[in-house]
Amino acid sequence: MKILITSGGTSEKIDQVRSITNHASGNLGKIIAELFLQKGHQVTLVTTKSAVKPQAQAGLDINIVTDVASLAETLEPLVKTHQVLFHSMAVSDYTPVYMTDLAELQASDDVSQFFSKKNSEAKISSAADNQVLFLKKTPKIISLVKQWNPAIRLIGFKLLVQVPKEELFAVARTSLKNNQAELIVANDLADIHDQQHLAYLVDGSSQELAKTKTEIAQKIYERVTKDD
Amino acid sequence: MKILITSGGTSEKIDQVRSITNHASGNLGKIIAELFLQKGHQVTLVTTKSAVKPQAQAGLDINIVTDVASLAETLEPLVKTHQVLFHSMAVSDYTPVYMTDLAELQASDDVSQFFSKKNSEAKISSAADNQVLFLKKTPKIISLVKQWNPAIRLIGFKLLVQVPKEELFAVARTSLKNNQAELIVANDLADIHDQQHLAYLVDGSSQELAKTKTEIAQKIYERVTKDD
Repeated sequence: MKILITSGGTSEKIDQVRSITNHASGNLGKIIAELFLQKGHQVTLVTTKSAVKPQAQAGLDINIVTDVASLAETLEPLVKTHQVLFHSMAVSDYTPVYMTDLAELQASDDVSQFFSKKNSEAKISSAADNQVLFLKKTPKIISLVKQWNPAIRLIGFKLLVQVPKEELFAVARTSLKNNQAELIVANDLADIHDQQHLAYLVDGSSQELAKTKTEIAQKIYERVTKDD
Repeated sequence: MKILITSGGTSEKIDQVRSITNHASGNLGKIIAELFLQKGHQVTLVTTKSAVKPQAQAGLDINIVTDVASLAETLEPLVKTHQVLFHSMAVSDYTPVYMTDLAELQASDDVSQFFSKKNSEAKISSAADNQVLFLKKTPKIISLVKQWNPAIRLIGFKLLVQVPKEELFAVARTSLKNNQAELIVANDLADIHDQQHLAYLVDGSSQELAKTKTEIAQKIYERVTKDD
């Protein structure tokens, strides 16, 4: 099969020296990629410069992206030519629009105006004691996947932080339905430590627990290839 | 000599999954560290997880920090026990205080109140179309160095973006004076490319140009060791 995997986390620039980053090591994506490669599948990995990656090898193609815009541009043609997408990348929800100091905010009658402003300076001054950063929502990449290729099989990933399991499963099922995924790997940051990585493979009717990154990869592999 | 070097860039958390990062590869600090190690000096490197680092070796001690608070805590005792500090780390100017959506901002009569608020959630919801992030200035680490140890020799680094050279030199000389540094390495992001890294060694009376990272390290080494 031709397998497409996203991993790592995107960064959205505030200016030329600062950005907002979504933390993600790329480890889980790397382990999934290595398992499919070992089993003889073709793997295309879309990831970030700082993410950990498998060693260069036959059957593996790596594409480096930075922000959500570059992810969308790189992913669209790849989604159209692959059979399965594992979308494990931590994608930025918001991107900076404008940054200003408190004085400019206080002087404004209509704060919504700041969402149509842009900083002209390449590095925003650090003179003021306070800053206010206005951010807007990025396009939801996972919701575009089936528009780009209705036939692709989609496995999504959902990371929440310190929520009850019922909430985690409910959020995963909403994503499953909204994005026409066949599986959502749902996990909670509080359950991820050095050697342990609890995750639930959530489909329409069940949630299967895996306890390490290797076990997550193995269980996903079995699900995706069981009808081959 | 006992040499202390900072490199890489700090990150300030917005919540458990997002942070504001200052971009810095750690390359220049690595090259400076390697040169002093090669010449037989003791080097302590204070850097970040993602920064490039010299190979582990005799004479080299590495400390990992994350944000400005952890940098200050790690650096203070080290500044007191070293003779020279090369402070090449890109340190965050601002740290997040509170993030909210546009509706909460619009409903407020006094926007300064947001600087005394805190987010209670571990991962801020991405439901709203817009967000507003309030940030406050971090302590200026470079200004604390001589308070911690008046005898340490301080070499600072200043990165600006697309400014006239006169402005770059003026900003460097202000930092030289305010922080009682003996030298500021001043550079402009627009002059830094793959193989080229233009930087000016700015002291009270002159600015000496170096054209690559290796040349910057060599020239700094000569200056710092010339009276030994």
